[in-house]
Amino acid sequence: MRWKLTVEYDGGPFVGWQRQNNGPSVQQALEEAVEGFTQERALVQGAGRTDAGVHALAQVAHVDIAKPADGRTVRDALNHHLGAHPIAVLTAEAVDDDFHARFSATGRAYLYRVLNRRAPAALTRRRVWHVGRALDADAMAAAAARLLGRHDFTSFRAAECQADSPVKTLDRLDVARVGEEIHLIVEARSFLHHQVRNFAGTLKRVGEGAWTPDDVARILAARDRRAAGPTAPAHGLYLTRVVY
Amino acid sequence: MRWKLTVEYDGGPFVGWQRQNNGPSVQQALEEAVEGFTQERALVQGAGRTDAGVHALAQVAHVDIAKPADGRTVRDALNHHLGAHPIAVLTAEAVDDDFHARFSATGRAYLYRVLNRRAPAALTRRRVWHVGRALDADAMAAAAARLLGRHDFTSFRAAECQADSPVKTLDRLDVARVGEEIHLIVEARSFLHHQVRNFAGTLKRVGEGAWTPDDVARILAARDRRAAGPTAPAHGLYLTRVVY
Repeated sequence: MRWKLTVEYDGGPFVGWQRQNNGPSVQQALEEAVEGFTQERALVQGAGRTDAGVHALAQVAHVDIAKPADGRTVRDALNHHLGAHPIAVLTAEAVDDDFHARFSATGRAYLYRVLNRRAPAALTRRRVWHVGRALDADAMAAAAARLLGRHDFTSFRAAECQADSPVKTLDRLDVARVGEEIHLIVEARSFLHHQVRNFAGTLKRVGEGAWTPDDVARILAARDRRAAGPTAPAHGLYLTRVVY
Repeated sequence: MRWKLTVEYDGGPFVGWQRQNNGPSVQQALEEAVEGFTQERALVQGAGRTDAGVHALAQVAHVDIAKPADGRTVRDALNHHLGAHPIAVLTAEAVDDDFHARFSATGRAYLYRVLNRRAPAALTRRRVWHVGRALDADAMAAAAARLLGRHDFTSFRAAECQADSPVKTLDRLDVARVGEEIHLIVEARSFLHHQVRNFAGTLKRVGEGAWTPDDVARILAARDRRAAGPTAPAHGLYLTRVVY
């Protein structure tokens, strides 16, 4: 039986979603939980390969399990075997064998949280990017609008990005002030490596008045990573939804 | 000059607000930050002595500082000297010498957060009390209403409580469902030791159907700690406001 898992995690202790040799990954923790439950060798495939430190409210993954069980049992057993890892399986749903968490996905949504106050984060430490200088969220929203649609996003693409093409269609990039925070809400079918964090780093420069919305349009047109702002920290980023 | 400090902290790493011999306290961290900034011996007095693990969104404290400075400098310098402690000074305001964080306070507000879903907390680990069984928030709200007003709250008082009298006036005890969480919002002039956590532990039993609102009225009237529910965990509790 193939299972679709929806998973929440704190990215802080992990080298990222994907199994690597240099430290614990979310994928490895989930695979070990499946193996603890089933005594089967497991391959857990995720919809998005979140980087080290990036969080998820609702990552989606799939895994094949021979052992008979219902969805509630799979969910509860995996949570039991995850033990002290800050990973929670929210739901486990039986799906057809042709469901693939990554290749069947038709959309992904991310949230980027900026704590915009003078005092540093205490309760939200490692959960937000702290920016002490007051940001102009309206200017950031106006600049964000210049990035919507189908473009060559080379200016916002990490050097190590493995995507075949830098052309993507950005469906949503909203900027909202929520109390002391500024939230970027971003949706697309798929993203380049570091694309959302590079948006955040660039829009922060707009918010502090260094760049205008027109500058952001020029940065996009330059198709040059050096034209855009720095990559914002991983710990402000959340994978919030995967659409199928 | 006397300064009123409004302080946010993650209670997790601390033995509580108050200086103790058995580990780091929030008070000690703040006093060391003041001493680092001023080279003066400092006594930081808080409005509420939160227990080990209890968080604050807006604890209030006062401290006397001889070194001349404005409020922004005091705030920024204390945050600098707090270093890696998960404590943030939100504001520092000059106040009259007769202001006392504890004795001048006329009201205190707390939030208690219950994560009410089957899956454990991942991103909110140590920030909420996880209760896996579905709770009836309406029944909890009806029971909470029975606790409002002026009563002898002995049934909800810790054995080690040092208050002169168990009689307190409870001004607010709202129960609100917020997404996957249930929030208790509690206000009074002052509280007995563990009072809010004992409310939470008792209302949880109502939410799961073990007790009715009438039972809670009987528990209150019993004036017997053994009649009420267990003390809910510290890490779900937040001091949210102090009124002067």
